[in-house]
Amino acid sequence: MNLLYAQSGGVTAVINATAAAVIAAAREHPGPIGTVFAARGGILGALDEYLIDTRGLDDEELGRLARTPGGAFGSCRFDLPDASADPRLYDRLFAVFAAHDIGGVLYNGGNGSMDLVVRLSAAARERGYPVVTVGVPKTVDNDIVGTDCCPGFGSAAKYLATSMREAGLDIASMAGRKGSVFVLEVMGRNTGWLAAATALAAGDDADRPPHIVLVPEVPFIEEIFLARVREVVDRLGYCTVTVSEGIRGPDGIILMEKSHDEAGHVQLGGAGLSVARLINERLGYKFHWAIPDYLQRAAAHWVSATDHAQAMALGRAAVTYVLEGRDGMMPAVRRLTDEPYSWDVVPVPAATIANLERKLPREFVSADGLHVTTAACRYLRPLIAGELPVVTVDGLPDHRPLRAHLVRKGLQPWDA
Amino acid sequence: MNLLYAQSGGVTAVINATAAAVIAAAREHPGPIGTVFAARGGILGALDEYLIDTRGLDDEELGRLARTPGGAFGSCRFDLPDASADPRLYDRLFAVFAAHDIGGVLYNGGNGSMDLVVRLSAAARERGYPVVTVGVPKTVDNDIVGTDCCPGFGSAAKYLATSMREAGLDIASMAGRKGSVFVLEVMGRNTGWLAAATALAAGDDADRPPHIVLVPEVPFIEEIFLARVREVVDRLGYCTVTVSEGIRGPDGIILMEKSHDEAGHVQLGGAGLSVARLINERLGYKFHWAIPDYLQRAAAHWVSATDHAQAMALGRAAVTYVLEGRDGMMPAVRRLTDEPYSWDVVPVPAATIANLERKLPREFVSADGLHVTTAACRYLRPLIAGELPVVTVDGLPDHRPLRAHLVRKGLQPWDA
Repeated sequence: MNLLYAQSGGVTAVINATAAAVIAAAREHPGPIGTVFAARGGILGALDEYLIDTRGLDDEELGRLARTPGGAFGSCRFDLPDASADPRLYDRLFAVFAAHDIGGVLYNGGNGSMDLVVRLSAAARERGYPVVTVGVPKTVDNDIVGTDCCPGFGSAAKYLATSMREAGLDIASMAGRKGSVFVLEVMGRNTGWLAAATALAAGDDADRPPHIVLVPEVPFIEEIFLARVREVVDRLGYCTVTVSEGIRGPDGIILMEKSHDEAGHVQLGGAGLSVARLINERLGYKFHWAIPDYLQRAAAHWVSATDHAQAMALGRAAVTYVLEGRDGMMPAVRRLTDEPYSWDVVPVPAATIANLERKLPREFVSADGLHVTTAACRYLRPLIAGELPVVTVDGLPDHRPLRAHLVRKGLQPWDA
Repeated sequence: MNLLYAQSGGVTAVINATAAAVIAAAREHPGPIGTVFAARGGILGALDEYLIDTRGLDDEELGRLARTPGGAFGSCRFDLPDASADPRLYDRLFAVFAAHDIGGVLYNGGNGSMDLVVRLSAAARERGYPVVTVGVPKTVDNDIVGTDCCPGFGSAAKYLATSMREAGLDIASMAGRKGSVFVLEVMGRNTGWLAAATALAAGDDADRPPHIVLVPEVPFIEEIFLARVREVVDRLGYCTVTVSEGIRGPDGIILMEKSHDEAGHVQLGGAGLSVARLINERLGYKFHWAIPDYLQRAAAHWVSATDHAQAMALGRAAVTYVLEGRDGMMPAVRRLTDEPYSWDVVPVPAATIANLERKLPREFVSADGLHVTTAACRYLRPLIAGELPVVTVDGLPDHRPLRAHLVRKGLQPWDA
């Protein structure tokens, strides 16, 4: 049989490490596994029979793939409807699978993608189509349940904590008599994991940045927040604030300048500027704000070695699951000990985690809702540990494009 | 004699490398040089007699200082008025100098700071006060004339070019059928040096990010810009744009959402969002934008080794200039060859460069005004070359605070 590997949703700094591990692990089983095809542009590429033959990648390129950010084969945001709602999509998918002898699907995505794993698995069972579908977790948001953490998160967390520490030293050195504020807006959607991770920048010193961490799990109360900002500025001359893109007021409404893409998806962004302006208007401090946006999930020059190792381990495990016929499962990270951090990989049924959203537990947020606890830091610290060497050319990371070998299409074009 | 070292204006990822080099070089001359005092908070700290005795820093701390971002001794934005306009300020400065046997001043700043060097030097001459004042260049904007480049620029340039390469891979993998755009807003004030540096991310391939580079030296013409965006999206499915914070329309008005701090200084920022929104409104593409803000000038985890070496060399040279009595001079980088890049340090009179602003030469900007030329890349490439090892603790750069030993004040408090 051949395998189909597809990337889904927002990409990360280490999703290609998972891809490289899938390909390398499959090559170790030349008997049962023929070729790993990668869908070009996620599940939509699979529907289009737009497949990449990864046999064209030599070892040097696989190594380069493993340290290249973004989704090397392309990703997409597309929710596969239920088979009962639109059987044509599934007809087409299985036709593509049959045309290319695909007996295993590895779907690399977030909690929404695990829903696709469940649906595809059910549809194959119903039709008696012999394919093993396995989910592989990935998201910088760290919001998949059933796993200690999600590949991509540790690296984004390391980048953001480093950025807060560095930028915090910058604004500290510029702090004047009139007070200044630095606001860092981070991703995370409805969860505060990435925001919480910036707290690691403070180390053991509460006077070091970030002084305030705002997460979506706790309502944003202007007066409580502003009082803290003023208190910090009075003491230190400046204040640094991490703002999760998804923070909400007590009314549950997201605190941001909303904008929508054509599909109607909300593009989060703007919470940081809103908070910075609020401070400026109410307290008169001058402000700087940063929105790293894609930079935080693409910073392959500064990945967490732990995160990278987990991304690879989960990719390898997924191939094993396919070989073992563990249909509808997802390999997850299980934490064994905090210090030293140890973990292994265990299977969890995608059906038990699909579409759920893991939020920060209450004990990770301080009582006043303005920072995180030592318990949160104990959980987070090992996930950003370790660095990897960076291969550079002319002072920049070597991310030359891979030689992509497109598979000749065997089916009629498909019109969605 | 003792030396006074002060940091001025916006800080950088390597200004502390200059500071460390000044302190280390001074220690090599224990005969003529006693102590290096660092002004706490720039020239305002000197006026306040707020001095740090750097003898308290041991070798380990000096090494750590050399790789810590921000201004370890504090900086400020303060334009010293001419001695004829406000002699009291100079009376006070010379009183502080006399109280602490200061015979040499090393002022680490940008083109505005070189004006202070000129004024202080003239005032000392006029009063017959025996102090040698030397400027030491620093600015991420790279806009000081008379030097091949400015310490701080190469590291910010490396960070931004890396960020564009990484984020470009992210958006490329997400490119859908409807077109998407990524906008990176960078610093640079009235000059496009930092924006131009992101062009290094493309390497030799014009189809790789950034596809468009907007610099303040060329008026921003909406229709020409939008036509290019559309052309790139039609070809690739996405488009990446670097926007300098200071770009202006044909009317000369800055394209940004203006905001002001209390002192009336314009806080640049918002050009990127303006451009992103323009694209969305006129072409309908969805967009992401990033504003690294302080992150770009504080990214000590990813400095240019070349930049770091120059920051150190200029600090060392400045100490030599003080010893040689080269009053009113600034050590500058002179480029000897492009490939391999070689350079040395030469003295230039601060009076010939103060308050001037070096802009991108016309031959560095492409004819259509939407990108930079190979000549620009030839100039820029060596400045981002080389990496330095990063010392980490728990996965984050080790930037523990230095033990600061404040000098006991000998003068009456001073009321500005």
